[in-house]
Amino acid sequence: MCAGRSPYIKPTTTSCQQSDANPRVSTRFTPNFAGLKPTTMAPENPSLPSENDLPYVLILKPPPSFVIFGEHFFNSTKFRFLKAYESPLPLAHFLLAHAQSVQAILSSGGAPVTADTIRLMPLLRLVVTTSQGLNHIDLSECRRRGIVVASAGTIYSADCADSVVALLIDVLRKVSAADRFVKQGLWSSQGEFPLGSKLGGKRVGIVGLGSIGSEVAKRLEAFGCSISYNSRKKKPFFSYPFYPNVRELAANCDALIICCALTDETHHLINKEVLSALGKDGVIINIARGPIIDEKELVRCLVEGEIRGAGLDVFEHEPDVPNELFALDNVVMSPHNAVFTWESFEDLRKLVVGNLEAFFSNEPLLTPVVLDDQPHFSG
Amino acid sequence: MCAGRSPYIKPTTTSCQQSDANPRVSTRFTPNFAGLKPTTMAPENPSLPSENDLPYVLILKPPPSFVIFGEHFFNSTKFRFLKAYESPLPLAHFLLAHAQSVQAILSSGGAPVTADTIRLMPLLRLVVTTSQGLNHIDLSECRRRGIVVASAGTIYSADCADSVVALLIDVLRKVSAADRFVKQGLWSSQGEFPLGSKLGGKRVGIVGLGSIGSEVAKRLEAFGCSISYNSRKKKPFFSYPFYPNVRELAANCDALIICCALTDETHHLINKEVLSALGKDGVIINIARGPIIDEKELVRCLVEGEIRGAGLDVFEHEPDVPNELFALDNVVMSPHNAVFTWESFEDLRKLVVGNLEAFFSNEPLLTPVVLDDQPHFSG
Repeated sequence: MCAGRSPYIKPTTTSCQQSDANPRVSTRFTPNFAGLKPTTMAPENPSLPSENDLPYVLILKPPPSFVIFGEHFFNSTKFRFLKAYESPLPLAHFLLAHAQSVQAILSSGGAPVTADTIRLMPLLRLVVTTSQGLNHIDLSECRRRGIVVASAGTIYSADCADSVVALLIDVLRKVSAADRFVKQGLWSSQGEFPLGSKLGGKRVGIVGLGSIGSEVAKRLEAFGCSISYNSRKKKPFFSYPFYPNVRELAANCDALIICCALTDETHHLINKEVLSALGKDGVIINIARGPIIDEKELVRCLVEGEIRGAGLDVFEHEPDVPNELFALDNVVMSPHNAVFTWESFEDLRKLVVGNLEAFFSNEPLLTPVVLDDQPHFSG
Repeated sequence: MCAGRSPYIKPTTTSCQQSDANPRVSTRFTPNFAGLKPTTMAPENPSLPSENDLPYVLILKPPPSFVIFGEHFFNSTKFRFLKAYESPLPLAHFLLAHAQSVQAILSSGGAPVTADTIRLMPLLRLVVTTSQGLNHIDLSECRRRGIVVASAGTIYSADCADSVVALLIDVLRKVSAADRFVKQGLWSSQGEFPLGSKLGGKRVGIVGLGSIGSEVAKRLEAFGCSISYNSRKKKPFFSYPFYPNVRELAANCDALIICCALTDETHHLINKEVLSALGKDGVIINIARGPIIDEKELVRCLVEGEIRGAGLDVFEHEPDVPNELFALDNVVMSPHNAVFTWESFEDLRKLVVGNLEAFFSNEPLLTPVVLDDQPHFSG
């Protein structure tokens, strides 16, 4: 399946100090953003540099966390933001105007960092991304230019895995459909609600046993599911059965979970053949990237009952979702928010600011991505 | 909390041979009811008794499994059903007419087996129930009369625990609300969906650490939650912190999970004081029985934002649900179907038929309930 072209990019490796094993919410749900710092320097502290002396971090488009929390979300006393999206200039003109002052970019999934963009910035040395995926960054060009990339590490893995479990139980046990049934007042008038299917005993096939996939496996084992997986290569630290071919994995599982990264190799990895192997009793869950599944084929399979159901957080042409799915009770959807919790955003803030401050202080990054010639195929 | 009156009934103990640890669905989701036997005896086997010679098992009202699968669902060659609900006679008259022929009742949650009913059947020796709860059976009268009771054992525990996790993640991560958001086409027009709250790190308080509660704990530990519990008494086999007072448990957790049985002691156990201790960031999940919570108070707390949210499978006056809850995105509801899976119904069929056949063959019951003077306070 993953035989193919080079150059490839190896799975993200991180030195993120924020382990998923540590409880991040010690008391209640209210987020604590007490660490946010003001943009303007305190005038009573003359030893600190003025804001005008701080190095620039370029932002092409505000990441979701900016939109939600405001532009002070990632503020620091060590750098300032250069906001391309606030300029009336075309992007290329804007970048040319600032070519000599940008050493770092803060990127997000919605704003591609292309080779053309990179080439306009001769001093660029760092790309930090707020997203779990790296598919929006031209990693080959970064590698060629010696630009380092800092990822979001594993901060989203637990939330993503939780979303997988929620979508899987929902599809099997009809949770969202039941909520609609009760809220529409149908219980007292229509009586019985359709039976669901038990999660325990299900054979779960995970495509991409990286940081998310392994968290999914840990959770689903506690429900009595049996786990197998497909990945670029066999993982020596896991004893789960390994299928080198995703079609064979699909043929031998009841639920197929997509946790891999989007690369040239995984684009439309889940095609007609794989969905056919999954079969009419099979369920598919995708919290990775929409284009990993041939969406047109998936919609056809769902509409025609060729697979049992789907839980989808991601789509090929977001935020557009195929209308045919709106009326299907066996399809549960969310608006690409599998990682959107108060707690993960607070972790993100610490990590992004930490990576940028480390870079400008000549200290090791918290979550560097290892760029080599291997395919990036990991969740 | 559980100090109080006697006589009490001890938690169900079972010898159910169908362990939750065994995968019950070895291949795909389609249920296998190949074991269902015809009502009419095969005429070519003269050694078997005719149907008219078989002992009666009284049914007051068809259990949900009858409604869903048809009346042959529990058929056996060892007994036949006497269906009170098909008779035009008032129940008391019907029972008096059959007083000398009923040794066993097949009961369900919707058909109470009261002391008055029991007194009309002097030969009654067994009550088998299809429900997880026993609150519809007058256990004191059974104990006094020496009538044995067979429960559904632990066959529902895994499905109930799965439902708890599904409801909890749904309330925290807004899964059903997100599904509505996408299906109503709001993603492309409204953009951002509200942030959820991470499950990992949450302090989960379980009320009733029985067969369901312990399955809930096992699952939520895999998500990184910390577990504590309240029960009639401390459980020596669990190391989770024990709170003898449910109000103190509520004050020290982010999510309160109701898994205990409904008894005189647990009726409105979750009252204004407990909900107040849970507080405005707290979430409550109930898959046990509606009247364990003071529903009027719960609705007020939810409407006025005094607690964060609720996942409710059960209600005080089912199938009626308080209309005030219909519009709340922070409330996820299901129509008392936390145990309704194809697989659990197949397990139930084997267990009910097995208990009744064992009784009429003078063999040990599969899932006898131990009736003594202890309160029945277990999930």
